[in-house]
Amino acid sequence: MRKLLLLLGLIPALSFGQNHAENIRKIYDAELTSGHTYENLRYLCKEVGNRLAGSPGAAAAVEYTRQLMESYGFDTVYLQPVMVPHWDRGGKDVVRIVNSEKYGSLELNALALGNTEGTGPQGLVGNLIEVSGIEELRQLGEKVKGKIVFFNGPMDPRKINTFEAYGGANAQRSSGAAEASKFGAIGTLVRSLSNTINPYPHTGNQRYNPDFPKIPAIAISTQDAEVLSQALKSQPGLKIYLESHGSMKNEALSYNVIGEIRGTEKPEEIIAVGGHLDSWDVGEGAHDDGAGCMQAIEVLRLYKELGWRPKRTIRAVMWMNEENGLRGGQEYAKVAKEKGEKHIAAIESDSGGFLPTGFSFSGTSEQKDKLLSWAELLRPYQLWNLNMPGGGADIGPLRDQGPILIGLKPDSQRYFFYHHTEADVFEAVDQRELELGAAAMAALVYLIEQEGI
Amino acid sequence: MRKLLLLLGLIPALSFGQNHAENIRKIYDAELTSGHTYENLRYLCKEVGNRLAGSPGAAAAVEYTRQLMESYGFDTVYLQPVMVPHWDRGGKDVVRIVNSEKYGSLELNALALGNTEGTGPQGLVGNLIEVSGIEELRQLGEKVKGKIVFFNGPMDPRKINTFEAYGGANAQRSSGAAEASKFGAIGTLVRSLSNTINPYPHTGNQRYNPDFPKIPAIAISTQDAEVLSQALKSQPGLKIYLESHGSMKNEALSYNVIGEIRGTEKPEEIIAVGGHLDSWDVGEGAHDDGAGCMQAIEVLRLYKELGWRPKRTIRAVMWMNEENGLRGGQEYAKVAKEKGEKHIAAIESDSGGFLPTGFSFSGTSEQKDKLLSWAELLRPYQLWNLNMPGGGADIGPLRDQGPILIGLKPDSQRYFFYHHTEADVFEAVDQRELELGAAAMAALVYLIEQEGI
Repeated sequence: MRKLLLLLGLIPALSFGQNHAENIRKIYDAELTSGHTYENLRYLCKEVGNRLAGSPGAAAAVEYTRQLMESYGFDTVYLQPVMVPHWDRGGKDVVRIVNSEKYGSLELNALALGNTEGTGPQGLVGNLIEVSGIEELRQLGEKVKGKIVFFNGPMDPRKINTFEAYGGANAQRSSGAAEASKFGAIGTLVRSLSNTINPYPHTGNQRYNPDFPKIPAIAISTQDAEVLSQALKSQPGLKIYLESHGSMKNEALSYNVIGEIRGTEKPEEIIAVGGHLDSWDVGEGAHDDGAGCMQAIEVLRLYKELGWRPKRTIRAVMWMNEENGLRGGQEYAKVAKEKGEKHIAAIESDSGGFLPTGFSFSGTSEQKDKLLSWAELLRPYQLWNLNMPGGGADIGPLRDQGPILIGLKPDSQRYFFYHHTEADVFEAVDQRELELGAAAMAALVYLIEQEGI
Repeated sequence: MRKLLLLLGLIPALSFGQNHAENIRKIYDAELTSGHTYENLRYLCKEVGNRLAGSPGAAAAVEYTRQLMESYGFDTVYLQPVMVPHWDRGGKDVVRIVNSEKYGSLELNALALGNTEGTGPQGLVGNLIEVSGIEELRQLGEKVKGKIVFFNGPMDPRKINTFEAYGGANAQRSSGAAEASKFGAIGTLVRSLSNTINPYPHTGNQRYNPDFPKIPAIAISTQDAEVLSQALKSQPGLKIYLESHGSMKNEALSYNVIGEIRGTEKPEEIIAVGGHLDSWDVGEGAHDDGAGCMQAIEVLRLYKELGWRPKRTIRAVMWMNEENGLRGGQEYAKVAKEKGEKHIAAIESDSGGFLPTGFSFSGTSEQKDKLLSWAELLRPYQLWNLNMPGGGADIGPLRDQGPILIGLKPDSQRYFFYHHTEADVFEAVDQRELELGAAAMAALVYLIEQEGI
């Protein structure tokens, strides 16, 4: 079959020689001289904008990426239906110190966390009690009753990998309200998950405990958290006014958006590469995760530009609802299992469009050894960082189907300045860094479709 | 002596144990939790601003850094006099297409190159001839007579290390006017040295040939270079109006600013660490090279904060006039030789305040082996990139005095977006990246002052 196609000129034989180093060079050259990633991201950010699951913006993003992949002539482009939760912020979030001896009334930069129930327009007022995290909250127990709990645990700035610092501090965001409610707190403020002192409040997901009241959970900027903590120390009777308007709407029909190029030799072996299409409802979701989506589409587009056909099937996937539900990732894995699809690898880019340093991965020893055997092919592109374990939220549900799970590892220093804020806009993305990430994923996809894993 | 100081409690013995890994961890922890680098850079950028050699801004920067180092209580802080060239832009640079069939009259984003002689207020008008670089200019020879030569050679975007692309394209900037003048050209336009298409014109140094007329040399943005090239293709009779006002003033007295902490065991062995204090006259010289200066001062400040004294003498040096003369670096080496000083290492940070990836270095095999023997101590901080050769412009003149010459290697992807433009401002610097660079230099200085090299 392949011979026939070669004779017909349908596979450019030269481009597909045995020299992987040369072909990876071609991928990088194409991306760095005529890549589409940056312009596509501009469109997603500026013309579509932010796109929380269930929002009109998310619907626009689905349609944009579907059309984009169709325009590139991928073999198949389709929508995979998935019901998603639909949270709506409902209005401006307000956090105000009302009785500061030093400041009088002082407004703080605030954003309610996702999935929170709002106070409604009447707001609420309460005394504040500061804790460093869930553990201190539990020690205080009933002492927080009737109060607003202020979680002020910082991300540890000493961690070189900032995702470790994020992991160490995010329980206060994801389950602070649920825990505080158990002890009778009437609301929570959360120090934003950022590793520098800056004015941006960072939203993000939180989950209530259904057995307890759904109290407000609002993030304030690290800068304001410092101010508030100082004010509270010198004035323990500090009172805070909270107002937020969030609510869960009916679940909405949305989609994972999928485009694929079929393999010529082992089409049944699938390599999925993707990011999540939804974002939070502030900023433009540029780094999180417009970058990953546009890079994944670019991987397949590069095959078209180079006139290559992969040996195995490669698939770009835009997962829906990573931010506040993960329904897209779960549905994708479920459907893959039902259809009896065979994923040999799943690659996710969801750590920002920053300088790629390598990949982290989880799999069998054979899979890991195979990936590590390519280290010297990746090193000329400064992809020095191959480590375990790894993967990503959206590809996690595929784990029991046996693919190697791989996460692109960009440099992590700047991510938590932008993450889940109004500052995560197109202008925060560097064209070269974004393109290098797309090329890095394309290089790895190329090696896997050629050699298997 | 050391024993005595230990007994007297003047050297904290514990901090100075044999465990280099622990001490490097202390350096990073101190920098990442309570570093001064970012705030000091803010002051330099926002309160001093840009500071071309010979300008009042440069004088302010000298005084600021002198006071800053004195405030930290370094053992010695002093100014080293050096006469510097003083170029002044004199006014707004204008480049205008005057007869475009498509655009009519069209103003381009322009900045005269440093050391150029202006046209004066009357400007000049001429026909344009485009070349890809010096080589093509030489082939055209007398054909450029009476014309404005448009150097439109791009930085090669395929180079992963962007400094290689810069090196490949900068002859058109540094000697384009000198070469074009030989053949009778009346002026030159230069495509900015940037590796993406963006609206910023990049200034930079150029040198005339004293035997030929000093014709204007003006940079236009890459975006405008693309527009101009297209316009010229469709309309070969395109005429351009140039106006610039630059002139060389009298040489001015300025200074290298030096602070040092004397070594306890081998004070005669000096480790210099520094950046250049001057910048171009646009933007704030944040990445180039405020970052390097503030990082160098921070290396010594960390010793004070940690209560350490080095075994060998460590010296922070702010070199003056790197951008358009290198007088500071030359004077520093000259004085060192006259005084019989013994530099064992010189470390320069002049590639931007971006994520540090490692060091490049030049020296004897013994020096290089010693440095490489520390690789595992640097790797936990993602300093994976130790390569040869290396160094920097300001430490180059020290070469024949035998120190190992070392350059901090930050990631290079974003540098040529900001380099020599109005966009090189404090806000373009990420706090974490800047601090990691300071800590990386401090870690290396620590190893050298402890172990020698």
